[in-house]
Amino acid sequence: MNQVPRGEETRSRILEAAAECFARHGYDASGVAEICQHAGVTKGAFYHHFPTKQAVFLELLNQWLKVLDAQLATAQVGATTVPERFIRMADMAQHVFQMADGRLPMFLEFLIEARHDPAIWQAVIAPYRQYRAFFADIIRAGVAEGTLQPVDPEIAAQVVVSLAVGLVSQGVFDPTGADWGQVTQKGIQILLDGLETQE
Amino acid sequence: MNQVPRGEETRSRILEAAAECFARHGYDASGVAEICQHAGVTKGAFYHHFPTKQAVFLELLNQWLKVLDAQLATAQVGATTVPERFIRMADMAQHVFQMADGRLPMFLEFLIEARHDPAIWQAVIAPYRQYRAFFADIIRAGVAEGTLQPVDPEIAAQVVVSLAVGLVSQGVFDPTGADWGQVTQKGIQILLDGLETQE
Repeated sequence: MNQVPRGEETRSRILEAAAECFARHGYDASGVAEICQHAGVTKGAFYHHFPTKQAVFLELLNQWLKVLDAQLATAQVGATTVPERFIRMADMAQHVFQMADGRLPMFLEFLIEARHDPAIWQAVIAPYRQYRAFFADIIRAGVAEGTLQPVDPEIAAQVVVSLAVGLVSQGVFDPTGADWGQVTQKGIQILLDGLETQE
Repeated sequence: MNQVPRGEETRSRILEAAAECFARHGYDASGVAEICQHAGVTKGAFYHHFPTKQAVFLELLNQWLKVLDAQLATAQVGATTVPERFIRMADMAQHVFQMADGRLPMFLEFLIEARHDPAIWQAVIAPYRQYRAFFADIIRAGVAEGTLQPVDPEIAAQVVVSLAVGLVSQGVFDPTGADWGQVTQKGIQILLDGLETQE
């Protein structure tokens, strides 16, 4: 029972403990010592797996983004047109809000601290720019299949991502201010009405 | 020359110094002592004008929002329809980005700290909810004048504010990632295309 867990298990326990500490006390206020205590591992074990607290955070971010990628991929299964793909992605908004809650504040805290560190900045901004590329590809496909007007896919994708960033931020900071799932669906519907070719 | 400034002038100097300290070092890292030193006032003078550092921040926020209100009002002068009013407000986006830069990070920092303090939370969230009401009124007017489809004004306003929140966040956190003024104009244009009645 008192065996010290090793390798992958230790790594998972550190990540899980860090996620809990960050969510409860914030990124800045959670020290490596506290994370180690919560995970039941030594500092030596911690530094064997992660060079810094920052590295733990980036790995957590990476894991959440993988979940989001999988959800976005699953949501689109069975959709035959680009507008349908958008509507299905809007339907999964509720899951994204749940995942973002308790995580976005610490993410913002991390982002504010990382703002003047170019290396960390790149690591944080890269996945976000990938989402823009992801939506640009979808919009490009919509223009090609004739369901969307011939818009600039890059700019239209930036608009879609802006709406998503704004919705997630508000869902976290003002959770009771609106039915954010409903606002997301309506927002995507209005955007689609603006983007779709007239029949 | 060495006269101690009094009354309104002291108050202004404290606010100006606090704005500079918050922008340079962040909200949390800027103490009352540092603000006083920067403003060239005593702690006694500081506490004569403001009960806490938090109160200084809320007053700064209040000032910026007044500037934004004035800009939003000015932008709409001469517009004869609701779609025109939206297009003119989108044109002033560049000013909003400039004003938000260097201020949004500290605002977010403040918001994260205030998240579990109901009184402060209310003070911060109130103006943001006013903007939602402001846009809901404009959309209601557009529906009434027949330029916009009969949408739910509250939900459509939440969509508009979501887009705005997302645009400002990205303009601050990823300033070189896009031409945010252009994305704002395109975003409003797509939303309007989705909202306007078909001719």
